[in-house]
Amino acid sequence: MYNALVRYCTRLQGKKILIVDSALKNLYGAPLAAKLNAALLATPNGEKGKQTADALLDALFRLDADRDTTLLALGGGTTTDLVAFVASIYMRGIAHILLPTTLLAIVDAAIGGKTGIDLPIGKNLLGTLHPPIAIFADLATLHTLPEDEWFNGLAEILKLGLIADAPLWQRASDNPKEPALIRRAIQGKIDIIARDPTEQGVRRILNFGHTIGHALEAATHYSLPHGRAVALGCLAECDLSRRLGYLSDNTFAAIYDVYRRFALHWPRVDLHPALRHDKKKAAGEVRFVCIDAIGHALPFEGAYCRPVPAPLLQETLDWMEGAF
Amino acid sequence: MYNALVRYCTRLQGKKILIVDSALKNLYGAPLAAKLNAALLATPNGEKGKQTADALLDALFRLDADRDTTLLALGGGTTTDLVAFVASIYMRGIAHILLPTTLLAIVDAAIGGKTGIDLPIGKNLLGTLHPPIAIFADLATLHTLPEDEWFNGLAEILKLGLIADAPLWQRASDNPKEPALIRRAIQGKIDIIARDPTEQGVRRILNFGHTIGHALEAATHYSLPHGRAVALGCLAECDLSRRLGYLSDNTFAAIYDVYRRFALHWPRVDLHPALRHDKKKAAGEVRFVCIDAIGHALPFEGAYCRPVPAPLLQETLDWMEGAF
Repeated sequence: MYNALVRYCTRLQGKKILIVDSALKNLYGAPLAAKLNAALLATPNGEKGKQTADALLDALFRLDADRDTTLLALGGGTTTDLVAFVASIYMRGIAHILLPTTLLAIVDAAIGGKTGIDLPIGKNLLGTLHPPIAIFADLATLHTLPEDEWFNGLAEILKLGLIADAPLWQRASDNPKEPALIRRAIQGKIDIIARDPTEQGVRRILNFGHTIGHALEAATHYSLPHGRAVALGCLAECDLSRRLGYLSDNTFAAIYDVYRRFALHWPRVDLHPALRHDKKKAAGEVRFVCIDAIGHALPFEGAYCRPVPAPLLQETLDWMEGAF
Repeated sequence: MYNALVRYCTRLQGKKILIVDSALKNLYGAPLAAKLNAALLATPNGEKGKQTADALLDALFRLDADRDTTLLALGGGTTTDLVAFVASIYMRGIAHILLPTTLLAIVDAAIGGKTGIDLPIGKNLLGTLHPPIAIFADLATLHTLPEDEWFNGLAEILKLGLIADAPLWQRASDNPKEPALIRRAIQGKIDIIARDPTEQGVRRILNFGHTIGHALEAATHYSLPHGRAVALGCLAECDLSRRLGYLSDNTFAAIYDVYRRFALHWPRVDLHPALRHDKKKAAGEVRFVCIDAIGHALPFEGAYCRPVPAPLLQETLDWMEGAF
């Protein structure tokens, strides 16, 4: 596995430090570290809080990591986000390579240079933009992926279909496990980010479904898996788009029909505290990306994020509570 | 005071949060916050460790700071570095304005977008590059500056003279308190950074004197003021330049003569642990900027930082110990 990575790394000067989710340490971490002649560190299972970041920074100092050092992150999106964040603040930024091992990380989290760590009141509230020097995904790691983890990735593929790629939406709805979806989703996300790397405009459409999705995660104290939160968030934001008059009832019904297949459950929680902390908030109002057709996010003053009146948002939240 | 700042801020949308060194809270902080209609936070006196950064981040969340918020940092370099670092990682980067109040911060720390916080084993080991949207210096704040603080700034002005501006060196040697030095030093630093904003090449010459200077600070647990450390570091690195054969004995003697005027004292401490953690280290070797004349730093493979053999470095450290 990871033969292309091993060849790539022979060109790197300086120390290499492989940081791996502890659940993958023995299966993938130790053999890969040996092949790469890299030091090996493990992070607690899927943790990316401040304490984990602090512990990782301490470990880098103990290993004498310097500006020539390259960090390699092997794991899901929490691991790749965390390692990328640490790389971005260590000595004003050192190089890192991402090795995503989950469908979510491969099609979404590892792409685009966003880094972040979570705080109890919200996800990724601390973070930077710090692109990796390379990303290698070995799809063999997906063979043992649990169903929930697979759905985390599918939810992002469906989202990408809704905002930018109607055929992708159709194919993912018809045959969610089609392997070719992965490459198309990766390319689709890259295409959007290439047009707007620093998220001043069109890149914001990738936040579709995530305003409500993140609030659902925060309000459930992250007991709701990301994919379920994003799927529910996408449907809710389709409903908002419908209530605002952009999306037809028929199209909305077709979208609802797809999400209904996945046994989703809307948690009875208060989303308002988390929505108040949403990063897209501006001038005190929460903002949403809207779509007006499958495959098309709606521009709004070049920003793609529009404020939504509170009563209308409440109608959507009430509707979702009844719908699942 | 700060009239230009007040006019500038009327153009800003979103919340403003003024973060001030607690020593300046009553004198400058409270009146300025009132004029700007800004929330006011104070950081412990000149502290910029991780705990201070964490406390500041917590305070920003409590104040509901969002992506439209602008942070303003009023104080010396520790305050401006700290606030800029926090701005760079809060929600992947928010805007900040620097209001340096010390000579060091005005001519050096606030310019160039470097941010950082200190760890017990070294300065600025965590940091980012995140330029402010504006810098305002009101020279009235310098009227009450203690002598040690003034020397902190002078040491950087002398350094800039040594690496890039022989007339500045001469004027600062002859009349260290000449007010016009300030503007010339600011412009000189800006000129270098404009040629290399991300420090891939020529910007590195600004590190002259700081390899040994930072090691002196770390080894004395920061009891040695920055200006004294940098002045001693500059002279030591001039001595290194001489031992490497780049700087003539006569020129070195003239430089030594200037630094001798300032009652410097070389602390008897072991610098090697701190030098091992220097950020410019590469391939295991500590690297130094060298000069070959007053006003001219020596290029080296486009990088301006050259490795120095350990025995030669030791000769310099021994010589410095005898010289002060």
